Amino acid sequence: MKIRIGIAGYGNLGRGVECAILKNDDMELYGIFSRRNPAELKTLTGAKVFHIDEISKHKDGIDVLILCGGSATDLPVQTPALAKDFNVIDSFDTHASIPQHFANVDAVAKAAGTVAIISVGWDPGMFSLNRLYAEALLPDGKDYTFWGKGVSQGHSDAIRRIEGVKDARQYTIPVPAALAAVRNGQNPELSTREKHTRECFVVAEAGADMAKIENEIKTMPNYFADYDTTVHFITEEELKREHNGIPHGGFVIRCGKTGLHDEHTHIIEYSLKLDSNPEFTSSALVAYARAAHKMSREGQSGCKTVFDVAPAYLSPKAPEELRGRLL
Amino acid sequence: MKIRIGIAGYGNLGRGVECAILKNDDMELYGIFSRRNPAELKTLTGAKVFHIDEISKHKDGIDVLILCGGSATDLPVQTPALAKDFNVIDSFDTHASIPQHFANVDAVAKAAGTVAIISVGWDPGMFSLNRLYAEALLPDGKDYTFWGKGVSQGHSDAIRRIEGVKDARQYTIPVPAALAAVRNGQNPELSTREKHTRECFVVAEAGADMAKIENEIKTMPNYFADYDTTVHFITEEELKREHNGIPHGGFVIRCGKTGLHDEHTHIIEYSLKLDSNPEFTSSALVAYARAAHKMSREGQSGCKTVFDVAPAYLSPKAPEELRGRLL
Repeated sequence: MKIRIGIAGYGNLGRGVECAILKNDDMELYGIFSRRNPAELKTLTGAKVFHIDEISKHKDGIDVLILCGGSATDLPVQTPALAKDFNVIDSFDTHASIPQHFANVDAVAKAAGTVAIISVGWDPGMFSLNRLYAEALLPDGKDYTFWGKGVSQGHSDAIRRIEGVKDARQYTIPVPAALAAVRNGQNPELSTREKHTRECFVVAEAGADMAKIENEIKTMPNYFADYDTTVHFITEEELKREHNGIPHGGFVIRCGKTGLHDEHTHIIEYSLKLDSNPEFTSSALVAYARAAHKMSREGQSGCKTVFDVAPAYLSPKAPEELRGRLL
Repeated sequence: MKIRIGIAGYGNLGRGVECAILKNDDMELYGIFSRRNPAELKTLTGAKVFHIDEISKHKDGIDVLILCGGSATDLPVQTPALAKDFNVIDSFDTHASIPQHFANVDAVAKAAGTVAIISVGWDPGMFSLNRLYAEALLPDGKDYTFWGKGVSQGHSDAIRRIEGVKDARQYTIPVPAALAAVRNGQNPELSTREKHTRECFVVAEAGADMAKIENEIKTMPNYFADYDTTVHFITEEELKREHNGIPHGGFVIRCGKTGLHDEHTHIIEYSLKLDSNPEFTSSALVAYARAAHKMSREGQSGCKTVFDVAPAYLSPKAPEELRGRLL
């Protein structure tokens, strides 16, 4: 019997999960739950659509519910609420609030006997895993995370809120010299400015003051002031044509020492080059949905993160096959 | 109370474990067990040495025993035998024999109530993990493992067995064009010859027939015949000066597609650059010893591989700290 997946929320992430399920023969999509009117929602694959308010009626038909809402306002409410009736997976990515979110979800999931895996994706997610593995293997060392080259949705939104800006796309780019120094095992001390640059493609409203817009971007606290930022004004057509995708990626690199006199240096590097940030995150959500299903069937319950999930749970293959073919 | 580690076998790997324990504050070395005469064995750190035949007398003093023997003849016997009295870790790396070794060890460990983690290191080990994670996230894709640049002990030994060879060192080197094609997402079909080259540094006996040696190396079945192999004859002094280390490393790269029409490509790459192959393997053995200790205290038993160990078990940090700082 296939693992029956529900999707709550139908934006980029929800569509990504809908597609990712097609790549996994041991899974099937039960349906999509949305706040929008189900009659008016057109899905990519013709999946069934239900109103989110009706979701508890469907608890017997769903093995794992993948929550595809946003971290700002959706998931802090939805994940604990839905963990009462479902095994759930989310991609909660507000790093500073993870401990609180974990506690909220854990209380509900433990009481309900469900499994909830939070903060799944690539950062938090695969990058976190690689930070942990690398630190555990090379405790005497230092790790670095670089993001990009890729589109930062938050920074693009921040530019769009500036007066006179019609649309914008912001790329986060690792500084090549910083990456090279880390890879060479130099363990450099790097300021925010030395690690990443920010490149902005901006469509201005007709008659807008471009010098003022550029200055507002470059001096914006938290978002841009601490970075070397480049601003390009382009046409709406060019933005649509050249900057339509949502690529991302990055690097987690750890350099550590071993030997009686620290005489040996080791570099562990994990990197991602993603054509579609939300589709890769969706693929991770689906793999962890399989893990949640297996863990739930074993009688486990409570909130988990990627740190708590043994790798074998992610694969549809039997343990014997994994040992024989992948080990 | 610290985790008390025993080391069985005192070659490169055993010495690596002895040093790695110094990097982990939550561990201490109980002692080293060897087939050699304990009175004559000089250790790097002044650790206590016992004869391996006496090891069962020390079972109450040791939380985890790390087996540092070879995969050819030591581990197939030692790991099942010692799992009767100890939680054990080994680096068994004969890929084809892993299923049999697992079954042998599992039967003993389950009956004895101990935890055994086998095939720990980097391949099998961290590379296996990365093959599994990448395949689970991107099921529609293909993965590649490249080894090197690094010293292959097995190939160096094979050269040393040739008549007229005094000493030798063999480096396995990924072919740059193959690596580049994989990284570009081209999913190439690569023959053995197209993936790696082999470079040999050979010290010949005085008066040896160098042309004959070179030919014997290049045509040696399994080891060299399927590769483009370069042979350099050098002096014993140069070999000692320039080729004294045991560096290694490599790459696991997976390219996969997502999207309704496979329109997006993603590349996951994991790489290692290791100054000392045995010391990195030792570091992995020590981290998995911590995991075995935690799993044993939870009441788990039986044989495990890296696929069965949740990442959090590897870290000395508490789950809350991992979530707060690394996730």
